Amino acid sequence: MEDCCCTSGKHKHREDEELRRLNNRLSRIEGQIRGLKEMLNNDIYCTDILIQVSAVNAALNSFSKELLANHIKTCVADNIRQGNDEVIDELVTLLQKLMR
Amino acid sequence: MEDCCCTSGKHKHREDEELRRLNNRLSRIEGQIRGLKEMLNNDIYCTDILIQVSAVNAALNSFSKELLANHIKTCVADNIRQGNDEVIDELVTLLQKLMR
Amino acid sequence: MEDCCCTSGKHKHREDEELRRLNNRLSRIEGQIRGLKEMLNNDIYCTDILIQVSAVNAALNSFSKELLANHIKTCVADNIRQGNDEVIDELVTLLQKLMR
Amino acid sequence: MEDCCCTSGKHKHREDEELRRLNNRLSRIEGQIRGLKEMLNNDIYCTDILIQVSAVNAALNSFSKELLANHIKTCVADNIRQGNDEVIDELVTLLQKLMR
Repeated sequence: MEDCCCTSGKHKHREDEELRRLNNRLSRIEGQIRGLKEMLNNDIYCTDILIQVSAVNAALNSFSKELLANHIKTCVADNIRQGNDEVIDELVTLLQKLMR
Repeated sequence: MEDCCCTSGKHKHREDEELRRLNNRLSRIEGQIRGLKEMLNNDIYCTDILIQVSAVNAALNSFSKELLANHIKTCVADNIRQGNDEVIDELVTLLQKLMR
Repeated sequence: MEDCCCTSGKHKHREDEELRRLNNRLSRIEGQIRGLKEMLNNDIYCTDILIQVSAVNAALNSFSKELLANHIKTCVADNIRQGNDEVIDELVTLLQKLMR
Repeated sequence: MEDCCCTSGKHKHREDEELRRLNNRLSRIEGQIRGLKEMLNNDIYCTDILIQVSAVNAALNSFSKELLANHIKTCVADNIRQGNDEVIDELVTLLQKLMR
């Protein structure tokens, strides 16, 4: 399959647009972490820093959700259609970890 | 009080050792975010990236716990002792946000 | 299909053994909630009650994980195999909600 | 202190109004758990059950938040004012557990 991806040695080729969006999310998160450092070193009040950490957690969660949605729509669905059912257990195991 | 901190315009002077530890945590998290970018751009399998995002979330959570513990032991306790009871409602409001 | 389940009006026939296990989980959780009421009405210390609430949350989470695993292994996989691809978006939407 | 509570053998006398509200929350949650059982035994679709589990988790979380807020405003603050500083470490330990 040309637009897939997921089986050869567990690699995943991502679409340009998807990759751009996911990279942007990570760049913003990297900036937020640097912002936390500045707050810390400028004696900003703990409460304000902790609220900002919540925002970073939410941003990471959005990144995860987008990546997981792509994963299910491409790798998981394609593999099930091709009879590679081990992808099902793999998804279940992943979700057990993510749902802690 | 010499070793405190918390009331003048909502600033917080942090001990050197505490500051060093918290900065180290954030530097490690920044490195983890850069690692996520590399994984993404090297076509690493979604499942492996999502497990790594969980590790970043856990690291951020540890940072929050340490900062919150320091906050309660210094700012919150000192203010209650000094009769600045507004710090109580402030802590309650903060925890409502952190516990989502 | 005899052992499935999932398409006619969004119902799901569950295996006896699975049903028994899931019911047991919910019965234990119901008992835990009644235990919380007793603690509350016997003036038990807040900290001890809050720790017990965490245990209930963990038990509910285990129930969710088991139900979700069954759902993916049966309804989701069967529907993808049969070409009912709307189950994919439905799973993605569900996970977005569960991951908050 | 007459309206407190928190030090003698780790018990906590709760106000009537507070107790009524917290009991109501738990009764509603107990009803929700019974509702989950009915859904399960009536072959309701997994997705709908899982969404309902999320609602129960949110209700438990609201119960925890209210109990924790009361705890901080009464036991924690009173003990700090009375110089019983072990309550500070106890709160920190509790929050570490609740924030997982």
